[in-house]
Amino acid sequence: MYQKDWREMVDEVNSFRRILVAVDGSEQSTKGLDVAISLAMKYNSSVTALYVAYVPFNETSDPNHTVYKQLLDDIDKQVRKWLVEIERKGLENNIKVETRIAETNKSIPYKIASYAESNKFDLIVIGSKGRSNIEKLYLGSVAFGVLTYASCPVLVVR
Amino acid sequence: MYQKDWREMVDEVNSFRRILVAVDGSEQSTKGLDVAISLAMKYNSSVTALYVAYVPFNETSDPNHTVYKQLLDDIDKQVRKWLVEIERKGLENNIKVETRIAETNKSIPYKIASYAESNKFDLIVIGSKGRSNIEKLYLGSVAFGVLTYASCPVLVVR
Repeated sequence: MYQKDWREMVDEVNSFRRILVAVDGSEQSTKGLDVAISLAMKYNSSVTALYVAYVPFNETSDPNHTVYKQLLDDIDKQVRKWLVEIERKGLENNIKVETRIAETNKSIPYKIASYAESNKFDLIVIGSKGRSNIEKLYLGSVAFGVLTYASCPVLVVR
Repeated sequence: MYQKDWREMVDEVNSFRRILVAVDGSEQSTKGLDVAISLAMKYNSSVTALYVAYVPFNETSDPNHTVYKQLLDDIDKQVRKWLVEIERKGLENNIKVETRIAETNKSIPYKIASYAESNKFDLIVIGSKGRSNIEKLYLGSVAFGVLTYASCPVLVVR
């Protein structure tokens, strides 16, 4: 009886119910998605794939300016393509993967971490390097930043 | 049929068969152990808990010197106590957790990462801060070092 209760406790404490996977179209973020889907199969989790776009707007910029509108449209166009692929990959594995695009004119890793916190995710999955993929670098600046800002567990994939 | 094959593929790719959890007796490393046990339940993994002791020996030190012997004995005595607890916690959850002590006179995170690599672990679980537990620090130097040196995925718990 004691044993059973204990087991349930460990299971309860460590359930990854809400998984956020940071995606940027890189090979490593595809691996991250695979890991997130695999974990979701085991833990019955919901998965959200988040792409954060850096946009050079600030408080004084007019978001309706043609240049900015064009930039956002371009990002959307590029990113939508692989977000659809991500949703499809989830469906093929019977996991509903929601996709989100967020913008920031500050720090991408901070945006990922704060998105996770405000939406109560309990795991962030991220590639160690992402699109920069600098060979000499074992831990990219985005992954490092997410690890620095996040208040929940972070799984760094390679 | 296609769907089923695909699902098996994702599952295969992301199986965490051999999990290494870095332990140092801190509260965060206890959380790490819980996460490792939970994952082992889901993925049918083997779990090894590794404690790396820093010892101020070098190539010219005589390991048979009384001072060093005393130091190693002291470490062993202190660490054995909670390694036994770790094994017990595994057993209560029907997971065999092996425990290991390793020494280094160089870098603890490097030792953890190279231990994982040479023993073909496919996931390292580590607490974000460990025993130093400096409040202002969100990512401790040991976790950061392991993330830097490791060639496999790393799960940082909080």
